[in-house]
Amino acid sequence: MSEQTPAQAQQLRSLVRADHVLEVFIETAAVPEPGPAEVLVRVEAAPVNPSDLGVLFGGADLAAAVVTSSAERPVLTAPIPDAAMRALAGRVGTPMPVGNEGAGTVVAAGSSAEAQALLGKTVAVAGGGMYSQYRLVNAAACLQLPAGMPAIDGAASFINPMTVLGMVETMRMEGHTGLVHTAAASNLGQMLNRLCIEEQIPLVSIVRKPADEDLLRSAGAAHVCNSAASDFTASLTAALRETGATLAFDAVGGGRLASQILTCMEAAISSTSAGYSRYGSAVHKQVYIYGALDRGPTELARTYGMAWGIGGWLLTPFLQKIGPAEVARLRSKVAAGLATTFASTYAGQMSLAGALQPASIAQYGRMATGSKYVIVPTLDIA
Amino acid sequence: MSEQTPAQAQQLRSLVRADHVLEVFIETAAVPEPGPAEVLVRVEAAPVNPSDLGVLFGGADLAAAVVTSSAERPVLTAPIPDAAMRALAGRVGTPMPVGNEGAGTVVAAGSSAEAQALLGKTVAVAGGGMYSQYRLVNAAACLQLPAGMPAIDGAASFINPMTVLGMVETMRMEGHTGLVHTAAASNLGQMLNRLCIEEQIPLVSIVRKPADEDLLRSAGAAHVCNSAASDFTASLTAALRETGATLAFDAVGGGRLASQILTCMEAAISSTSAGYSRYGSAVHKQVYIYGALDRGPTELARTYGMAWGIGGWLLTPFLQKIGPAEVARLRSKVAAGLATTFASTYAGQMSLAGALQPASIAQYGRMATGSKYVIVPTLDIA
Repeated sequence: MSEQTPAQAQQLRSLVRADHVLEVFIETAAVPEPGPAEVLVRVEAAPVNPSDLGVLFGGADLAAAVVTSSAERPVLTAPIPDAAMRALAGRVGTPMPVGNEGAGTVVAAGSSAEAQALLGKTVAVAGGGMYSQYRLVNAAACLQLPAGMPAIDGAASFINPMTVLGMVETMRMEGHTGLVHTAAASNLGQMLNRLCIEEQIPLVSIVRKPADEDLLRSAGAAHVCNSAASDFTASLTAALRETGATLAFDAVGGGRLASQILTCMEAAISSTSAGYSRYGSAVHKQVYIYGALDRGPTELARTYGMAWGIGGWLLTPFLQKIGPAEVARLRSKVAAGLATTFASTYAGQMSLAGALQPASIAQYGRMATGSKYVIVPTLDIA
Repeated sequence: MSEQTPAQAQQLRSLVRADHVLEVFIETAAVPEPGPAEVLVRVEAAPVNPSDLGVLFGGADLAAAVVTSSAERPVLTAPIPDAAMRALAGRVGTPMPVGNEGAGTVVAAGSSAEAQALLGKTVAVAGGGMYSQYRLVNAAACLQLPAGMPAIDGAASFINPMTVLGMVETMRMEGHTGLVHTAAASNLGQMLNRLCIEEQIPLVSIVRKPADEDLLRSAGAAHVCNSAASDFTASLTAALRETGATLAFDAVGGGRLASQILTCMEAAISSTSAGYSRYGSAVHKQVYIYGALDRGPTELARTYGMAWGIGGWLLTPFLQKIGPAEVARLRSKVAAGLATTFASTYAGQMSLAGALQPASIAQYGRMATGSKYVIVPTLDIA
């Protein structure tokens, strides 16, 4: 182990207590030694993805959050509503590591050739528990970043890039030829927009603010619809007619948006086909919900015939379905495009301790477009 | 053509007028001569399925229906609400034949051997336009009923039997091992119950009246849950745990029932697996909506992780998907079980003219359990 590596280091933990209280805290633990096939990564950047927020805060009422203890070692506590507690039964009493992905420098390596080859290199890894100053991971799980690329540029190299690639692969596997995406000005949405332009896939981007329309159009998006505009239904139907898109990925989840998309898909299909069918068109229309920006119920008007589907979509089972060879192919596409297609941008950086400050949470917890944050655990290293 | 066959005969037609009025009437038309491969069927029984009601009444306001003209040649008119008109644009001005399936006697046949072989036989056919005294169909589309079986016993030999077989085949094709069915005391539900008992498929039947619970239990159903009972969630979860059913066919459509089923499936799965997953179980849970007893919106609470799907299910595309050989196999299963597994029972019979009487419509239009009716067009033959 390198001289500079401390014996102990900090890591963030989230605990759901049986008394309906969430406790997010920083604990100090021994820095482990790598086994033969392992490497120790000094984590230099770990993004806050929407998928991290659920583990981090467990549905607690953050408006009632309180930070106690010293500024360097804060503990955030917040009450958990009864409804949220039911889904958390399985994690009561177990402090959970947080942070799906991140990047940093390999500061110690096990004896295997594969591990040794990474020593001193900057690597990205989706290992979980990345909101830590040091993280022990399997060498095989590491993606070595191109020489000279800072860790922060590769920190989000797994979830968003593999998700947009997964959306495109799902489209192909299920026989669709175009995509619809909601909350489309997000980091992930901008990435999907770049990928679709490169691969000449028709994409309809749905946003709800004029500024987000501008952002996507200036990035080359041909079909951007504003769900808050009075002509949304007409503009979405026109875009669907032009693109022929019959598959949507929806990050919103709640409300009527998914159903509106299906309605407009059916209207677009009907407008180009003749004759009456009492069961609607025979063209299958699909919406996959992959996020929950709106946690309320999804309302389906069912005014789009019988050839429709809606369901959950999650990256991990998708990767399991396509298998290791296909995953490796997609990973190499990501590696080749980290500085371009799959680049992420951040609204701000914070330390581990900083991530527990209510003012920070008010920013990164919003999950609003353009407000993606990154945790830099090394900022806390004395 | 037989001596008794008249030159003209009656058939029921449904017309959506541009002035937002539905007109259901009986027209008299020339009885056609069979081509070489065709047979002329004297229709002796044609059931009123839920799938017929949409074509027949087109969403008109039947409470405001008026019958004019003579008792033998009635014309029913009713206003069509604006919301319903939008979906009917494709059929404005075109009188549509009604009646998906039925059975009767072959009274004339074309020159082909296949057609001639059916002369004088009782056949079932899903040819559309079966609410007619005489119907010309392709000989190949006919299912010859067992010798001595009255037409009424084979009149519903296509839609309900093929639908329940389609549900079971879908279950197998998509890797599930048990079924959930709603509105389960219907003719179709009783048929599915018999089929599942015979094929030893675990089935959870959901009804909403104690009398329907009794009906299914006395028919051997092992798992019957009442959605109106205070312990519905607990009893459904227990039944799902015992059966392992992860696929539901829902005839209701609107409201929260589909979502409740998914919630209870997830609870049943979680109760038998250890550990916490923030995305819920990895077991795929599916609901197919195949009816619309409640035309209101479907509300999804999305409290069942990410491995779920909901969508429309329709018999015709399913049969296209499995192909002619498999369809033929299922048809032969139906033929063998028409008097037993696939038998239908009717609450009443009516003539073509009788089907236009408001008192009749109040009965057969309800689509309530046990209120399946059959039209007997020969009752109108002088």
